[in-house]
This record gives sequence, C-alpha cells and structure tokens, in this order.
Amino acid sequence: MLKVGILGAGRIAGVHAAAITAHSGSTLVAVSDFIPANAEKLAAQYGCEARTNDAILNDPTIDAVLIATSTDTHSGFIEAATAAGKAVFCEKPVDLSLARAQACQKLASASGRPVMIGFNRRFDPNFGALKAALDAGEIGKAELLSITSFDPTPPPVAYVKVSGGLFRDMMIHDFDMANFIMGTAPETINAVGTSIVDPDIGLAGDVDTAVVTMTYADGRIAVIKNSRRAAYGYDQRVELLGSKGMLQAQNVLENTVVKSTVDGVTGAKPTYFFLQRYTAAFTAEWAGFVAALANGTAMPVTLDDGVAALAMAGAATMSVKTGAPVRLDSI
Amino acid sequence: MLKVGILGAGRIAGVHAAAITAHSGSTLVAVSDFIPANAEKLAAQYGCEARTNDAILNDPTIDAVLIATSTDTHSGFIEAATAAGKAVFCEKPVDLSLARAQACQKLASASGRPVMIGFNRRFDPNFGALKAALDAGEIGKAELLSITSFDPTPPPVAYVKVSGGLFRDMMIHDFDMANFIMGTAPETINAVGTSIVDPDIGLAGDVDTAVVTMTYADGRIAVIKNSRRAAYGYDQRVELLGSKGMLQAQNVLENTVVKSTVDGVTGAKPTYFFLQRYTAAFTAEWAGFVAALANGTAMPVTLDDGVAALAMAGAATMSVKTGAPVRLDSI
Amino acid sequence: MLKVGILGAGRIAGVHAAAITAHSGSTLVAVSDFIPANAEKLAAQYGCEARTNDAILNDPTIDAVLIATSTDTHSGFIEAATAAGKAVFCEKPVDLSLARAQACQKLASASGRPVMIGFNRRFDPNFGALKAALDAGEIGKAELLSITSFDPTPPPVAYVKVSGGLFRDMMIHDFDMANFIMGTAPETINAVGTSIVDPDIGLAGDVDTAVVTMTYADGRIAVIKNSRRAAYGYDQRVELLGSKGMLQAQNVLENTVVKSTVDGVTGAKPTYFFLQRYTAAFTAEWAGFVAALANGTAMPVTLDDGVAALAMAGAATMSVKTGAPVRLDSI
Amino acid sequence: MLKVGILGAGRIAGVHAAAITAHSGSTLVAVSDFIPANAEKLAAQYGCEARTNDAILNDPTIDAVLIATSTDTHSGFIEAATAAGKAVFCEKPVDLSLARAQACQKLASASGRPVMIGFNRRFDPNFGALKAALDAGEIGKAELLSITSFDPTPPPVAYVKVSGGLFRDMMIHDFDMANFIMGTAPETINAVGTSIVDPDIGLAGDVDTAVVTMTYADGRIAVIKNSRRAAYGYDQRVELLGSKGMLQAQNVLENTVVKSTVDGVTGAKPTYFFLQRYTAAFTAEWAGFVAALANGTAMPVTLDDGVAALAMAGAATMSVKTGAPVRLDSI
Repeated sequence: MLKVGILGAGRIAGVHAAAITAHSGSTLVAVSDFIPANAEKLAAQYGCEARTNDAILNDPTIDAVLIATSTDTHSGFIEAATAAGKAVFCEKPVDLSLARAQACQKLASASGRPVMIGFNRRFDPNFGALKAALDAGEIGKAELLSITSFDPTPPPVAYVKVSGGLFRDMMIHDFDMANFIMGTAPETINAVGTSIVDPDIGLAGDVDTAVVTMTYADGRIAVIKNSRRAAYGYDQRVELLGSKGMLQAQNVLENTVVKSTVDGVTGAKPTYFFLQRYTAAFTAEWAGFVAALANGTAMPVTLDDGVAALAMAGAATMSVKTGAPVRLDSI
Repeated sequence: MLKVGILGAGRIAGVHAAAITAHSGSTLVAVSDFIPANAEKLAAQYGCEARTNDAILNDPTIDAVLIATSTDTHSGFIEAATAAGKAVFCEKPVDLSLARAQACQKLASASGRPVMIGFNRRFDPNFGALKAALDAGEIGKAELLSITSFDPTPPPVAYVKVSGGLFRDMMIHDFDMANFIMGTAPETINAVGTSIVDPDIGLAGDVDTAVVTMTYADGRIAVIKNSRRAAYGYDQRVELLGSKGMLQAQNVLENTVVKSTVDGVTGAKPTYFFLQRYTAAFTAEWAGFVAALANGTAMPVTLDDGVAALAMAGAATMSVKTGAPVRLDSI
Repeated sequence: MLKVGILGAGRIAGVHAAAITAHSGSTLVAVSDFIPANAEKLAAQYGCEARTNDAILNDPTIDAVLIATSTDTHSGFIEAATAAGKAVFCEKPVDLSLARAQACQKLASASGRPVMIGFNRRFDPNFGALKAALDAGEIGKAELLSITSFDPTPPPVAYVKVSGGLFRDMMIHDFDMANFIMGTAPETINAVGTSIVDPDIGLAGDVDTAVVTMTYADGRIAVIKNSRRAAYGYDQRVELLGSKGMLQAQNVLENTVVKSTVDGVTGAKPTYFFLQRYTAAFTAEWAGFVAALANGTAMPVTLDDGVAALAMAGAATMSVKTGAPVRLDSI
Repeated sequence: MLKVGILGAGRIAGVHAAAITAHSGSTLVAVSDFIPANAEKLAAQYGCEARTNDAILNDPTIDAVLIATSTDTHSGFIEAATAAGKAVFCEKPVDLSLARAQACQKLASASGRPVMIGFNRRFDPNFGALKAALDAGEIGKAELLSITSFDPTPPPVAYVKVSGGLFRDMMIHDFDMANFIMGTAPETINAVGTSIVDPDIGLAGDVDTAVVTMTYADGRIAVIKNSRRAAYGYDQRVELLGSKGMLQAQNVLENTVVKSTVDGVTGAKPTYFFLQRYTAAFTAEWAGFVAALANGTAMPVTLDDGVAALAMAGAATMSVKTGAPVRLDSI
C-alpha cells in the first residue's frame, strides 16, 4: 500500500485526493497547504491528517509526495521531496523558468528517485486509443498532426499575468501531447498569436488565440491551435494524417441525445471543462504512477517530458514575439 | 433513341420529363393531360408536342409510354398502352383495387410488353448501397429489418379521402422496399394505426401514424413505421440487423455544416421532401428502364412487384381495421 | 448513514456493493449467499460480514436490504424484508409469475415499507436527458416511441429455459422504459417473435428476436425491438417522434476515435454490455434509492412499476403464442 | 441566350461544356484546342463546332469566352478575349507569374469587360452555407479559420515540375477560400512544408505537405493545411471559430450507409475527388457567371480575386523557402 502525502489543497489537489483514495494500492496519509484551513478541510473530507509541508516531507512512513501547489514552488518541492527519498508526482508545468526546471531536473535525476509530471491528457482513453492505433500501424506513418484545444472561457487578466503566458500555461498540454504522439520533439517552432478574445489579455503581454506550427527532423509537421474561448465548451481534438489514412479523436459529448426539429438536428455540447472531460484520465494517471512504482518501471510521463514541453513553450513564446521561427535547440 | 410519350402533366410528370430529356438514350415526343392547358405548358417547357392520350397511344413511332395520371386510370392505361405495343413505365400504385390490378397484370402479361412500376426508392444510391452490402454478405444473413418513413407534413383531408389510405398511398413504398431488401414477400402482416397527427384524418377513415410488423416464412421479421408528419422534414431510413452486423441507410442532409454554440451542436435537417431526397433516384430509375429495354433484360421493378406491394397494403388495411394479423395469402 | 445488507453475492450484487460503498450516505454491513463461499468472497472484498439471509433480515441495525438473489426468491424476500421493517431494493424482475408478484405487491404495500425495483436504465443519463427534453416540451406531444435493445450474444439455452422467456427476462427493461417515457401503460400489446439467432432457443419454447407494438388509450404507439445478438455489441437506443420533432438517445461508444482509410470511415463500437454501458446508471440508481429514503419521498421506481412491466411481459408472451394482440387489462 | 466559346478541350473544359449546355440561358457555340482532334471530340459530344482559338475570339456573335487552356496561356487569352469585347470566364490560376497576372489585370480592367476566375469552391453549397451563417452572425465575429484540403493521391513529378508548386497549383483554392470567408486578405503569411509523401517531389523543388498560418490586420488568424495524399479520398473541410461559436463544413460522403460489425462502425468515405465533390459547385459557378452578365452586376469572383490569391501563393512559396514569415504587401 503506497502511502501518499499531498502538498497543496486546491481544486486539483482534491481531484488527486479522490484518485488516491479510490485506488486500492494507495492511501492518503496527509495533506498540507499554505493556508492551513484549506488543508484541514480537504483532510477532513478524505479522512487523513492536515500537516505542514515539512511534516509531510520528513515523515519516513510516507512513500510518495504529490505536488499540487502553485507553479513557482514546483521545482523546489520536487528537489526537496526527491532529496527526502520520496517518489514524486508533480502537477504541470515543472516551472515557468526553463533554467530553473533544468536545474531541478539535474538534482532530481541525481537523487535517483522517480518523478512523474501530471500531463493527464496522455491518459485520456480517446487520445490513448488514437496513439495505440498509430503504433499498430493502422494509418501507416505519421505525417501531419493537428491538435485543437480551446477552453470554454478566458481566465481573468489577473491570472493571465502570473500564468507564464498561454504557451506555458495552456498550450504546454498540447506540446506534451505532440511529443506523446510524435514520439520525439520538433526541430523548429513557429507561432502566431493574437488577443482577439480579450484585448486586456494583449495589454497584459499575452495572447489568447494562437497557432503554432512545428517541423520535425524527418519531415513531419504538427500544428496546434489554442483559443481561450469556445462558446460551446471545452474543445479537445486530435487529428493525425498518416501515409495510409487519418485518425481523429473527437470531443466527448455531454450525452448521446439528438433532437431534430424545424431548427435542425442538435446534439449535446462537449463536456464543459477539464474536470468533466478528463475524469477518467485523472484516475488512469494516478494508476499509472502507482503501477510504475509497484513494478519498478519508468514513469509514464517523466520530468524530462515536463522540461521538454516547457522548452517548447519557451520557443513558442519567443517566436510569437519575434515573428520568426525558433529552433528548439537554440532555447 | 427511345421515343417516349407521357400521359399526365402534373408534378411527377415534370420530374420524369426532365429525366427523359436529360438521358442520352431517350427523347420526349409528346405529353397529354385531361386538362389540355397543363399538357401544353409541360410540352412547351420540354420542346415536345401536347396531344390527347389517344394520339399518344396510337402513334406507332412512340416506343414507350410513361403513365403519370391519377391512380384510378393507371390500370386502364397500362392495358391500353401494352395492347398498343408500347413499353410502359407506370407510377405507383398500380391501382387502389387489388382485383383491378390483378386483372391488369394478366392482360399486360399476355401482351408480352414490358411494364415497370415507379418505385423510385429502389434507385436511391443509399438504399442501393445497403442492398449491395447485404448481398455481398457484409452482415451475414438478414434477420430484422426496420424501415422508417415519415413525411414532413400531413396531406389535406380531401386528398386522404381519395388516396386509398396511408397503406396504399404512402406505406406502399415501404412495402416495396421491404420486398426489395428481403427478396421475398412476408407471410403475415400485422398493423396498428392511429390518427394522432390529425383527428380529421381519423374521421375520414384513415390513419396518419402506423406501425406494421411482418413475419417471413424463414423466421425473419420486418417492421415499418410511418408518420404523416415530421417537423424536421422527410425522414427516410432503413436499418437491417443481420447475423454478423447491422446496416443503416441514414438520412440525406441539406448540407454538411455543423454549428456549435452555447445551445448545442446543430447540423442540417434532412432534405425536405421526395423531390429533393430522391433527385438522383428519379434519374437512375429512368436509366434503369431505358437500359432494360435496350438490353432486353427484365424490368428492374415489375408489374408483379407493384401488385405484390398493393396486396401488402390491402392486408395492412385489413389488419388495422380488424386488430388482428392478416396472412398475405388470404388477400 | 444507511446500513445495508445484500442478499445474493453474484455479479450484480458486486455492482451494487461497489455503489453502496462509494456512496457517502450508505454503508455495506453484510452480505449473504446460498453458496456461503461466495458471500465470504464479496464480504472480504468490501470489508463487511458474510452472514445467512436470516441473520441479515433479523438484524435490527440494518436499515435496508438489497435483493440480488435468483428471480424465484425475489417475492419471498421482498415480503420477508418488508415484514422485518426494512426498506427494500430488489433486482428486476419481481417474479416470473404475475400472480405471485401481485400477491407480494399486496403484502409489501400493507407493510408500509418502501420497495424499489432495479430498472437501472431509467437512471442512464442519456435516456434521462431524452425524458427531460420531452417533459420540457422540446418536441411537443409524444406520438410514436421506438426502443431498440439488442444484446451482444445470446445466452446459453440452459439459461433460456429458466429465464421466463425473452419478454420477462430481457424486454421487461424495455417495457419499463416505455412506461417511464410514455408515463402510462399501453392498452394493447402485439408481439411477433422468432428464433432465427439460435433455433435451439426456439426448441426450448422461447424466441430470440421479437418486435412488440403497443397502443395507448390516447392514440400513441410504441414499438420495441429485441434481439439476443448484435455482432457489434450492446445496442441500446430510444427514439421518440413528437408533434414538433424527434428525440433520439443514441449508443454510447467505446471511445471517440474515428479512422479514415481506403476501407471507409470507422468509429468505435458501442460499449460492450450492460456493466459497461450502465456504469453511471447503477451509481445513480443507488443514489436515487438513498435520496428517496433520506427525503421520505416516493421511490423513483416502485414495486407497482415492477408488476406493471411483468404484466406487459406476460401479455407479450401470450401474444407471440396466440398470434393475436392482447389487451393489457385482460392479463 | 449567351453564346459561348471554350478555349481548351481537356477534362475541365468538358465539365464546363456540360454546365453551359445544361443552363437554359447559355449555349455552346464552339470549342478549340491546340490539339484539334480534342476540340473535335468535345464539339461532337456537345453538338457545337470545333474551331481555332482565333476563330472563336474573332466571332462577333460569341458573347463569352471560357478559358480552359494550360495556365501559361491564361493571361494572354484573357487579354485577347477582353480586347475582342468578350466576357471572360477563366480557370484558375490567372498565371504562375504574379507580375504577368498583374499586367493582365491592368489590360483587362482597361477593357471594361467582365472577367470571372474559376474558384469553384465558393459555389459549393456547404461552404456557401457556412459563409451565410457567418454573415448572419450565428457565431458572432470570426476569430480563427482552419481550412483542410487534402488530395487523394499525389500528382506525377512531371506535373509537379510545371505546376508552379503546391501553393500556386493546389493551395491557391484555399487562399481564395480564406479571402471569401474572411472578406479581406491577410497581412502576413507563414508557411512550413515538407515532401514527406513523395521525396521526388522534394527533389523537384516542391513540397507535398504544407501548413500556412496567416494573420490579419484586425487580429484574426487563419491556418491552411494541404497534403497531396489522403488514403481515404478528397478531404475538404472548413472550420471557423467565432466569438459565439464554431462553424464546420464537413466532408461530403459517398453515401449515408453505416455498417456496424465486430470491426467497428463504418461509414462511407468522402467523395473521391473534385469532379465528384464539386459537381453542384461547377453548375452553380456557371449560373453565377451567366446571372452576373444578365443582371449587369459584379462577377461573383473577379480577376482581382485571382490576382490576390496568386500573390498569397507567391508569399507562401517565399516563406517556405526562407523559413520566415512574409508580409503580403512586400510581394
């Protein structure tokens, strides 16, 4: 039975607490938060202790630490937890600073402790089925990947200002998805962006709508589209053209009811946002972490994966500013 | 070049006039109507002569006669035209009276002249593809057939009164479709019906919504659903469960545009009514007639087919009245 | 906290044990089975006691009994459990004998204890959304209901012989679904059936493919199609034509991946069988039971509902044998 | 009655000959080809004369000239025909040389004669419905346009060498589609491309797979994806995200039949190539030309539109070579 402590007691910590508790191979021992009352509330809900970060990190009976704190503390906690001998599951992104993330990567690697980064979408059964079909050769060789990822509503500008920007905060999921499907990082990254959804996002130095094209050493191409707003809900699609066909992972809908009237034939919208869409993915993600530890196999998403996606976000951020393509190896 | 005369100059005559004219192997020579002005109008539109029925039937240069007059005249014109040595294409139904149709069948058969009945749906490319997939064994052996056939709006009660009733006027197409797909007529016919769309249709002795189940000698089952009203347009679907799978011919939509908004994901409605939905079928139907004559092969839809569907309509009419199943061989 | 004992420790008991355990308002106290080892196994899995039926029924601390035993014991256990003052949740069908079920209904009613019957499909979110849209008037008044319900593979003939037949064992779910959507029972029931999937099922006196048409006092019509075999999996659809449109609850698919190749455009199959398809429904069903007890409101599916569906199954069984429609009030 | 001569007697000339002949307001008088036998064959098929180019251009009874010759002759024939007082319909592209096209544009403009360029996709009913919905405000303001355009199979390298390259030969349709939907030309064009489908296309200096992102003065973004090969057929989709929703024009399928088996749920492929997919568009395109002449209104697609798309193709060609974005006003 894997004994787990969670650092952070916000919304995503709650998602993980549920997964840890429901999994027959893990148990939630303690939770901390920089606002102690939050930790107490979550602890009460899941029947575990509320502690300080240090009390969790220093408890020798705790096997694994799940980091769900604010992004600026991720690297530090990864370093502290691995130094304390814990296995680590850390929410994305590793850091907003690539240099800081790389430093963390070195230390964590030296510790020899396993670290998994929470790119939950790799565990979505639909994207997983697409990847499996590709690996099974069902469409021949991959040639052109398209990822569409639209949020239902834009975040407040206050959030945007501390988010690291659309590429590090939102598209980072899609960079990782591209790496997951293509099996390697691209060579060049080419971004265009605009703040057409909310001009205040532009005034804050960020974009809310962006298209990134990426080229690979072997001639493949990928394109990622992001928008902070889709009136119809959370739009999460992947489309891959191969030499012998195309694979598409379409949206998950709220239900299967279709209504035909004089106004047309209307089906349900996509499930609203990530908590609804990726329910199964969060459960499978945690199971992947537990299984890798139990089997002594490699983490299904590594700290290296987290750093790679961060580098891509950095390149895209630079590209959208300079208006020129950026080679990933120049980052 | 097949020289053709049309008896009748109404809406469906116009559809056929266009097909005859567009076909490179047929030419429209003359058209008649019991209202001469109608014949003149259609003749002018297609650059042919307006004549009397007799002038068409007696013209030795005319090879084929297309009968698009009112139903009560069909049998008589089939007899007259075949007696005059013409090949005949006659709109459905053959007659409202099964006895009258059978008498016609005998005379026409004795004449040796080919007669085709206008069950246009057999020529719809979608139903044709379903039939071809069945014949190719793609779903194994047929077991359970379902036909859905809803009109967009109910006809006026005045029309209902002279129509022969829903089973002879509307479901007769579906009886023929069942025969086309199942390859044989059923043994028993079991109908329920109601006038829930328009009570005045009930007062006129007819139903506007009906479900017919049919059983076959080899254990297969078919079910046909009809409604005189579907707010979203003309609903024309066929679904066939077989031992190794299912085939569905779905509706043809007005276009492929899908709109996603806060109200849902909305696509286009089915094409409105039979003139839109069966455009390609009317063209292919005429081509089938011309080709059978040119090649000396059997008509793709025969007078026997027309009489068989009429017998099924009679059985269903009896079943809905008596509330009991009717054996087709008792009709 | 509702304290629950389960009678029976088979597959469906396991489904309910999971739901009872996961629900924050209920706890599983004990489980019994006529094979004690089965009870012990399930008890160990969920951390509760294995007991005899009597020990559960006589335990004054147990609030509710969930009956998941073989059908022939349902009525007796409903009577015993209500007599013991328990709230009861009983799997469908109430009994194979309508008379026995009605006797049970009387006793249970006299006891004043609440009884819910496990028609889980009412809690499927898709059928629920269809019902909600109907109740909201989105398609006007209901006119013609169609229910399609195909199992992936036929059961062994040995099972068929003790099942009560397709209408009591399988279509009973669809009879209840019709009552759920139409809001009232039909007047007449008209069944055709065949054993085209497996002739041995016919030799055992049952059918494996059936179509039932039902008429309602106000002129509505319903049709239910059942097959014991669909090569592509569990086919569970509802379609309702109303005066202003149509509602369809389509199948739930295994995933959203679509593959386009030279062979066509292929999507995933429906989820395989009821455990996959109705996962959410089983959870919601139990929540409905707990909520009704907590709030003192009527059960969302009553013993009367169970008896009504059983009467319809009896009428259909008679109709398929006599080849004639059966009035429900004659049963 | 508009009297028309066609220059060129290849495949696309045949498509136009059919449309001219079928239209009640136009008649085909003569056709020419640099291989006279080709002209004679087409003339025989449509019952018109085979002539030389000059004999058509100099015939004062001919009102309109349709140019369907090889691309390198387009500009010259536009100039000659407008100088001869003809209305002109010219196939795309105007020219491979932007400078030459601009010179032609000046002369044609000075002539005062109307010139239409054959961007047939604007007349596709699906793209037309999408545009109409946008113009009706159904998704608010346009923000992010995506055009997918894949051919079924790559052309021979010999064709590629004289084609002007993928951007001028293939994507030019999509550049015009973007202009049609967005209502204005972009500011910057940013292309990536590869020859992953056929390396010989790369050796010939062209790409076979490309993604172009375009930015607009008001902050909108468009992305176009092209591949010379899609194993499943001709893939022609448009997707537009707006402030209040999304519009998608999906592929037109060969038929509506869906087959469900143990292997999945399979529908038909897209219609194979442009002659099948754009049948209706070619008819509507010609009707648009005839109507504009009859009504004295502006051509629905102008020579300016043709030159604009050509400039965009030039910018994309430069961008893919330099690896940098190109401002359209720098071309």
